[in-house]
Amino acid sequence: MTDIHHRPQPKPVQQPTGMPVHRYTPFVPVDVPDRTWPAKRIEKAPRWLSTDLRDGNQALIDPMTPSRKMRMFELLVEIGYKEIEVGFPSASQTDFDFVRQLIEEDRVPDDVTISVLTQAREDLISRTAESLIGAKRATIHMYNATAALFREVVFRISEEECVQMARRGTEMVMKYADKHLRDVEFGYQYSPEIFTQTPTDFAVEVCNNVAEVWQPAEGREIIFNLPATVERSTPNTYADQIEYFIRNVKHREHVAVSLHPHNDRGTAVAAAELGQMAGADRVEGCLFGHGERTGNVDLVTLALNLYTQGVDPQLDFHDIDHVRRTVEYCTGLPVHPRHPYAGDLVYTAFSGSHQDAIKKGLEHLEYLAEEAGKQVTEMPWEAPYLPIDPHDVGRTYEAVIRVNSQSGKGGMAYLMKSEFKMDLPRRLQIEFSRAVQQHTESTGSEITPQEIFEIFNREYLTEGPWRLTSAGSTSSNGSFVVHATVDGPSRQGVEIGGEGNGPVSAFVDGLVEAGAHVRVLDYTEHALDSGGDAQAAAYVECEIGEGDDAEVLWGVGIDPSITSASMKAILSALNRSAR
Amino acid sequence: MTDIHHRPQPKPVQQPTGMPVHRYTPFVPVDVPDRTWPAKRIEKAPRWLSTDLRDGNQALIDPMTPSRKMRMFELLVEIGYKEIEVGFPSASQTDFDFVRQLIEEDRVPDDVTISVLTQAREDLISRTAESLIGAKRATIHMYNATAALFREVVFRISEEECVQMARRGTEMVMKYADKHLRDVEFGYQYSPEIFTQTPTDFAVEVCNNVAEVWQPAEGREIIFNLPATVERSTPNTYADQIEYFIRNVKHREHVAVSLHPHNDRGTAVAAAELGQMAGADRVEGCLFGHGERTGNVDLVTLALNLYTQGVDPQLDFHDIDHVRRTVEYCTGLPVHPRHPYAGDLVYTAFSGSHQDAIKKGLEHLEYLAEEAGKQVTEMPWEAPYLPIDPHDVGRTYEAVIRVNSQSGKGGMAYLMKSEFKMDLPRRLQIEFSRAVQQHTESTGSEITPQEIFEIFNREYLTEGPWRLTSAGSTSSNGSFVVHATVDGPSRQGVEIGGEGNGPVSAFVDGLVEAGAHVRVLDYTEHALDSGGDAQAAAYVECEIGEGDDAEVLWGVGIDPSITSASMKAILSALNRSAR
Repeated sequence: MTDIHHRPQPKPVQQPTGMPVHRYTPFVPVDVPDRTWPAKRIEKAPRWLSTDLRDGNQALIDPMTPSRKMRMFELLVEIGYKEIEVGFPSASQTDFDFVRQLIEEDRVPDDVTISVLTQAREDLISRTAESLIGAKRATIHMYNATAALFREVVFRISEEECVQMARRGTEMVMKYADKHLRDVEFGYQYSPEIFTQTPTDFAVEVCNNVAEVWQPAEGREIIFNLPATVERSTPNTYADQIEYFIRNVKHREHVAVSLHPHNDRGTAVAAAELGQMAGADRVEGCLFGHGERTGNVDLVTLALNLYTQGVDPQLDFHDIDHVRRTVEYCTGLPVHPRHPYAGDLVYTAFSGSHQDAIKKGLEHLEYLAEEAGKQVTEMPWEAPYLPIDPHDVGRTYEAVIRVNSQSGKGGMAYLMKSEFKMDLPRRLQIEFSRAVQQHTESTGSEITPQEIFEIFNREYLTEGPWRLTSAGSTSSNGSFVVHATVDGPSRQGVEIGGEGNGPVSAFVDGLVEAGAHVRVLDYTEHALDSGGDAQAAAYVECEIGEGDDAEVLWGVGIDPSITSASMKAILSALNRSAR
Repeated sequence: MTDIHHRPQPKPVQQPTGMPVHRYTPFVPVDVPDRTWPAKRIEKAPRWLSTDLRDGNQALIDPMTPSRKMRMFELLVEIGYKEIEVGFPSASQTDFDFVRQLIEEDRVPDDVTISVLTQAREDLISRTAESLIGAKRATIHMYNATAALFREVVFRISEEECVQMARRGTEMVMKYADKHLRDVEFGYQYSPEIFTQTPTDFAVEVCNNVAEVWQPAEGREIIFNLPATVERSTPNTYADQIEYFIRNVKHREHVAVSLHPHNDRGTAVAAAELGQMAGADRVEGCLFGHGERTGNVDLVTLALNLYTQGVDPQLDFHDIDHVRRTVEYCTGLPVHPRHPYAGDLVYTAFSGSHQDAIKKGLEHLEYLAEEAGKQVTEMPWEAPYLPIDPHDVGRTYEAVIRVNSQSGKGGMAYLMKSEFKMDLPRRLQIEFSRAVQQHTESTGSEITPQEIFEIFNREYLTEGPWRLTSAGSTSSNGSFVVHATVDGPSRQGVEIGGEGNGPVSAFVDGLVEAGAHVRVLDYTEHALDSGGDAQAAAYVECEIGEGDDAEVLWGVGIDPSITSASMKAILSALNRSAR
């Protein structure tokens, strides 16, 4: 060891950014030193509520038209959502009309519950109940402000007034449900808004008051939805709040504890997962994370995260592109190319080492499947860099690998094999990758499989000074004799006759006789397709020239005859040397 | 309580999705029952490494051109990154050339360390060291595969061979650093790849072996980077692995423990945060989360998450749109409209209740600032639905509120006030919101401030049958007398003379004399701007008509004279009633 490799561990930098960071104070979480959630695992799917038609729709630049809303509703049903929040009918005539349309046109399947949001005011609750007349199964979801900032600044009410508002609102929900919804299988959901910014003890107090009015019991559940309407801290603090709430809420066995995370800090998915570990029963969110500002938690990611752990999400995303296209159509907003499970780029690997690993991983999986007498799609999934089999969500292996100037031989080799059935030997991959890289570095662009094949064609399969014009061979007692005619650089119609332990060595023997300096170092060959009239591909590594001028080059030949393919491969190497 | 409000808590659904979930098995985390991280908080910024030019660049459809790379490098320096991974020079000539350019053109500030990635092979390490000749401060970052799947399927090596490869690679790094980099302030980083899929004990073993070769000491740190190259589980399991690693790695005081999360499950930000709580010192990622597939962890979100907690991120994002535009230019990929802190929609609130709360919150903040004799931008930030003051990242309040058919009066009121200085009384807001909602529901689109003003203008300020043609008033001993001429619906030039305790009541008195049925219920007025020649706006709530036909309507008048403004407001209400 020398002493030159040194760098001190940097001292903590104390260089202020100039941004007014002093304006912000840390979020103060509830203290749960004996929390149990970090040791838990999610072992079943939660109850899901899609709020795409409410929280999602209200946050669109152009809210959905009625026909787009219906398309979205049908998609949600098709995926398998059983609880769907369909609007805020007391706040918007459009929403009211849509709820009426769903009910009057009998669009809601028997096992699906529609839900509507309302504030805790009698006139609004009455109107909300009216919107649901004739529904089969429906939930009224009432909220009021419990967070101090909202109580004090926005509504100017005390904690006691807040509790009374929640109690009175609940009474009104019961009154108008009684009046209008006697034939509806009716449920009630209450949200203390914003739960995460409400002292957790007070949130529990309000909810226990609401429960005292509602009187949850066997066959009479209440949903307490605990919104992180604005994400304000690391997701573990949400889990702490949920665990604390669950410990202290009364009637736990008749309460559905529901999560409603938003994504202001980019950790809504984590908050929903840790919240489930903390004991929550239910999750509200939107497909691909639409909703106010940064969006609600993304229900697609949550579901497929469960899926990759062997937990049935109870939702069907076998055709993720269909879901994506429909949501993009309804919302007018794109799904990002890097969006988990659904983005354009998420089943691609550009880097050479990733591509190489994927190629080997998939080959290994094919091998295991063959051993087991099964299809790859039936095998337990394990592949480098792909947490999910793209097939399972309707994407394909062809999309797995894309090649740019950062890609290595693995990717090209994979493409040559999957698209053109050519299984390049390892050293040929290395040689060829230089040619491709030269091309991509000069254009700076991604390259298509077709372009790769064109480069391959130009490099290895283009005619040159050497050309095979006729070929034949006979074998006896393990000895091969070839008779061929070759056009060479200096003259045409050269007769080649040689002998060896196979057609390659025999042909080389003849070429050497005819004055060419060529030696075969490696050789492989395979059929390009199954069946008797398939083409064969031959790959030959040759040393060409003599002494210091000698160079090692690969040649490739394709021909219905395996003998001619190998002869062509040798001439391909000679041609490349001549260029 | 009646018995109609009932719905049993749903039984767990056991309806398989049809997707082959049986192919997947749960991730098995390391067991750390005495974990301490869930009680920790992040109290300082980590060391940051940007890998935008390596992991980010390699995953682009069109990798950056040299000039875009330079632009990105300059941006990273400008933001304040002190460690920047600039390429994989042994794998790509383009990368090699870029590293040379940085060094030869002296583009790297003295306090910035460039880093380059290499695999653990002598020829590659030698080439990597060559790329760094002449640098001031540089790190070689070497990795090899330690995860079982990679060892066994991709590289076919045993654990022992893997350890030896890491040791030998480290020796080679030291050898070639010794040969080429004697004048470089040199550092070494090692990554066991993929850390999260490697048994944590084995990852520790490999790292301890690497350390045994490198011999970390005072002034001779080693960086152990622990990649979650593919995100495979909930973020708490990463934190457990990090805490476990830290407990068991030797030379902890000379080791920088570094996180490198990817976002396959949408929880990379959370993984990086919980990993820091578990004791990590350093985070690697990309701006806006570029990188292979779903991307590396997003460094912008991580930094601004710290910022909102009063922790200086040591990075400057005071002009987030500049950062965003530059990254979009360099990568050719968009930042999503809902991307935390930077997306187009993240400082907007479409829903009425959110807008109303924001309006009140901002007014309260202005009030507090005034009380304290400070600017709002100096006040501790607390506002409903906005976790950060948009000003702090160069966005503005004007962008805060956009109005569509889902929006309520709060949003419109805010716009009328911020854009047109008109401070509408609460009940006028309610009345006006119906007009706006009618418009937006019929067009289905978002509406601009200008369109809102046009609707306001059409509704309240358009001429009608009633028109003020001249006006004057005198006051004595608290009694007002007005003299005005008005064109009415039935005849023109009606002389209005009335008396009251103010111009409004006097004018109404005169109108009633002249046969109009109007009564003023509420009245406010304010200057539209400061200064003597400012226009005044008057808002009057009137009851118009008699008995069952009476209706309550607001009128608005604008005039340089406050007297005329109020008279016009009353005629505005009469005109609306006549329409």
